[in-house]
Amino acid sequence: MAKIVQCVPNYSEGRDLEKVEKIVASYKNREGVKLLSCEPDADYNRTVVTVIGDPVAVAEAVVESAGVAAEVIDMTTHSGEHSRMGAIDVVPFIPIKDMTMDECVDIAKKVGEELFQKHGIPVFLYEEAATRPERTNLAKVRKGQFEGMPEKLKDPQWHPDFGRDEIHPRAGVTAVGARMPLVAYNIDLDTSNLEIGKKIAAAIRHSGGGFRYIKAGAVETKGIIQVTMNITNYKKTSIYRVFETVKMEAKRYGVHVTGSEIVGLAPMEAFVESAEYYLGLYGFSKDKVLETHLMD
Amino acid sequence: MAKIVQCVPNYSEGRDLEKVEKIVASYKNREGVKLLSCEPDADYNRTVVTVIGDPVAVAEAVVESAGVAAEVIDMTTHSGEHSRMGAIDVVPFIPIKDMTMDECVDIAKKVGEELFQKHGIPVFLYEEAATRPERTNLAKVRKGQFEGMPEKLKDPQWHPDFGRDEIHPRAGVTAVGARMPLVAYNIDLDTSNLEIGKKIAAAIRHSGGGFRYIKAGAVETKGIIQVTMNITNYKKTSIYRVFETVKMEAKRYGVHVTGSEIVGLAPMEAFVESAEYYLGLYGFSKDKVLETHLMD
Repeated sequence: MAKIVQCVPNYSEGRDLEKVEKIVASYKNREGVKLLSCEPDADYNRTVVTVIGDPVAVAEAVVESAGVAAEVIDMTTHSGEHSRMGAIDVVPFIPIKDMTMDECVDIAKKVGEELFQKHGIPVFLYEEAATRPERTNLAKVRKGQFEGMPEKLKDPQWHPDFGRDEIHPRAGVTAVGARMPLVAYNIDLDTSNLEIGKKIAAAIRHSGGGFRYIKAGAVETKGIIQVTMNITNYKKTSIYRVFETVKMEAKRYGVHVTGSEIVGLAPMEAFVESAEYYLGLYGFSKDKVLETHLMD
Repeated sequence: MAKIVQCVPNYSEGRDLEKVEKIVASYKNREGVKLLSCEPDADYNRTVVTVIGDPVAVAEAVVESAGVAAEVIDMTTHSGEHSRMGAIDVVPFIPIKDMTMDECVDIAKKVGEELFQKHGIPVFLYEEAATRPERTNLAKVRKGQFEGMPEKLKDPQWHPDFGRDEIHPRAGVTAVGARMPLVAYNIDLDTSNLEIGKKIAAAIRHSGGGFRYIKAGAVETKGIIQVTMNITNYKKTSIYRVFETVKMEAKRYGVHVTGSEIVGLAPMEAFVESAEYYLGLYGFSKDKVLETHLMD
């Protein structure tokens, strides 16, 4: 394999597992595509699928699967706790190996175009693929949700990137974009005081004046407080830097960091960079990691 | 690819690059075999080759290449600074992915047998493949070097594992074995006092009462002192543990660790484990590293 892309399509069905099975079938037994996970959530009524593989093969599978989702999901009767605007709600493409972000943007545009051409689903391009600044942020794109989309699409400012000014009657609207891999990361504090967790989360997150690529909050879990975050660009906001900053902030409140946790998958580079920092490694590159050479 | 083995054959030719080219040709354009590096050294008059790939394909390539080495290298006229006993001097097999050490031992035995059957080269099995305790250590196996081998092989204690009690007239004797990946690791100290480096090296190495899987020394380089080591089993003697111990010992002499360096390749796990330690990661496994899934 040479170029590898990751795609994490989210489908608005997390309860009827037969329907979910039909939707993910497009990713199975397909040359060049590997289905890494399929996580239906009943409360959200949503399924998050993670696939990796050859960019062309993955793009084809996504388009096919969107057609199935548009058939089996009826958004007019959909309910669930997670915001959503379409049967195939959001489709991010993520560069993993030997790929640039620009190449992922190209794939997003091609898939967006095909979703409309083949299935009649209007598409907004978002994040790195966005065509206007206000479409970068997925939350803004999705604002109004499925129910508000018919009116939103009439607004010239929200004319879809592909499609006309009306939704797909059952499948709604889809956001297709390109972004860096997300690292979901939690840091444990030896306190049961949620306020301390909230203050630390505010100190490290972008919106609170913290790191550019951190979205963070605090939760109580198993009797302790966890600072829970998404690192939206681990190359620019490193795991070790966030970890050490949380340790530093915790000291202020007389509490300690007891450990941390990666949720789901993270790229090798995110871990290796932390080793590099703590061991003061110089002259280091990915090429020194044996496994890098197994993937060529 | 499924199972991946690494092999690091050493050939007793490091000056005549045409001969080296003929020897490594066996590893090129061969399905399932990837030549990672070929490092001829003129002083040693020796070439270290690193290949990875499918176990069966790598084994075949090694046997073929040994035949070439036996043709182009004449040990009766060989000189060089490195100890050696054969044209293809030593052949270690190293488990990299989805392989046990036992499987590597089996490959070593098969290759050893074929080196004698096909090329008439007598073979000692060493390290994990050794058939007697005194053959575990390569230095003991090679003691006497090429020149001493005719006599050594007459000693019933040193009857080869494959072959008769006489050397191959031009290619000598070969050691074939199985071992863990070696991590070559250096730690820099902000001192020019070699004695301090030597004391620290003695404190951390197995022979000095230190860690079981560390072989270490001290050298002066670029005006500073470096503790230089081989970690012979990074799973049991971790990089971070050695690094922190050297930091601790350095303190005793009023010197500081300024950085460290991996020489050559090291397995991903060696780095990831250090990240795991410093970040206090729990619930962690290789499966959380995205790239693990690219190699299946």
